[in-house]
Amino acid sequence: MGRTLTYPKRQANTVNRYKHRATYDLGAIHSIVNASQVLHVSFNPGPDDPFPTILPMIGQMGSFDYPSAGIDEPQECYLHGYVSSRIMNLARNAEAGEGLPICIATSKVDGIILSLTPNSHSYNYRSVVLHGYAKLVTSEEEKLWAMKLITNSVVTDRWDNSRVPPDRAEMSSTVILKVAIVDGSGKIRDGGVSDERKDTGNEEVTNRIWTGVVPVWETFGDPIPSVSNKISEVPDHITNFIAKNNERNRDYAQRAVHITLPVEEQH
Amino acid sequence: MGRTLTYPKRQANTVNRYKHRATYDLGAIHSIVNASQVLHVSFNPGPDDPFPTILPMIGQMGSFDYPSAGIDEPQECYLHGYVSSRIMNLARNAEAGEGLPICIATSKVDGIILSLTPNSHSYNYRSVVLHGYAKLVTSEEEKLWAMKLITNSVVTDRWDNSRVPPDRAEMSSTVILKVAIVDGSGKIRDGGVSDERKDTGNEEVTNRIWTGVVPVWETFGDPIPSVSNKISEVPDHITNFIAKNNERNRDYAQRAVHITLPVEEQH
Repeated sequence: MGRTLTYPKRQANTVNRYKHRATYDLGAIHSIVNASQVLHVSFNPGPDDPFPTILPMIGQMGSFDYPSAGIDEPQECYLHGYVSSRIMNLARNAEAGEGLPICIATSKVDGIILSLTPNSHSYNYRSVVLHGYAKLVTSEEEKLWAMKLITNSVVTDRWDNSRVPPDRAEMSSTVILKVAIVDGSGKIRDGGVSDERKDTGNEEVTNRIWTGVVPVWETFGDPIPSVSNKISEVPDHITNFIAKNNERNRDYAQRAVHITLPVEEQH
Repeated sequence: MGRTLTYPKRQANTVNRYKHRATYDLGAIHSIVNASQVLHVSFNPGPDDPFPTILPMIGQMGSFDYPSAGIDEPQECYLHGYVSSRIMNLARNAEAGEGLPICIATSKVDGIILSLTPNSHSYNYRSVVLHGYAKLVTSEEEKLWAMKLITNSVVTDRWDNSRVPPDRAEMSSTVILKVAIVDGSGKIRDGGVSDERKDTGNEEVTNRIWTGVVPVWETFGDPIPSVSNKISEVPDHITNFIAKNNERNRDYAQRAVHITLPVEEQH
């Protein structure tokens, strides 16, 4: 009861700066991942390449084995995207072992913090980093389940409002990666402007420099029907999704400004 | 005259799928980087760690040695962020050699493509991946130049409208990474819905499923003054920045829907 599951702290995922903004809670971390339209996935292409590389992918947290798992309970990350043959082959070759070591990251900017001096400028934001081992999903049943999970993350209930199930060609051309999470961490910055006393106490400065926050959020516009669309009215699952997300995004960005951190935790 | 500079194609940055959306043009790639509020920077923490990791950072393309270099000419990427001691030490240790091998990525979603079947769903988007070698900026003059470049990328002209120059403590606590770019690639998807003939020719499907695009863009809200702000009116450099960016972002997302690709290039 009241138990909060957290990811283990390893050297690689321990947030050293601004500890107050760090979170290791599964619930907070999974929520940020699920609210992201795009995830950035990093992997090492091979021993001959000195550079890690990054692919943008779509993903969601979920548990196929325990579908009733809550957002604050252990889950895997399911990824879909323009899966180059590179990461597919690497993940396929890693099937025998633990899987391909990858890093998943996402960041959302919620506001621009305009302070007296450039060094005190900042963003309100939410970011997450996960490390884990990726394998291809090979079970048809699990792949179908993951495709529905990911499609519905793009627009709620879209799966049942489109032509499903996928046919045999669609199933075999779709690649889903399943990532067993090893560790994770999140960082959240909210609140207002924070300046140092050397500037707040200097009237020459405070009398000429505006300080405050510009909230930032993602807006979904009015749906534009395709030329071949035959449905006159935009369906509820789309208008509801747009209305709900626009309100949630705007509210978050505006309310984040007014959260007051203890003085020693600001900046 | 009319010359277009492109990044070299290596195996690691060659876009294999949907080639028609790939770009190697310096101008297109640099513009997407500069329009991003956050960049995702990947590096390998060390030989004992199997996972690459990712940090969110703020960055801009620029050339200190050739400050008049155009957006379509060779430039370095300057990065600032919550630089953990990890990446700082790695970059510092790499000073003697080429630098720390890193990958820089960014993605912007411009619209949700709602097609007849989940497999045809897509995003309009712009994404970039750069590979390069990172070193710390050690020259005071170059660091100050990069701090101004990065501050003004957050809000145009903010540098001259804040308390500058940074004092000695601010200069020494600021770390800027300079990345010599080795290769880069971008991907751009715009246009509308694209479905396969097996579905567009099926009236049972087309009569019940709405298809179209939901444009998506980043909105900057009304500025919220801090409790200690003494300037009654929001300055022009802020209101102009907000108005210009809101219009540009919304216009891009809405116009992207109507760009028609040749049929063989769609999807």
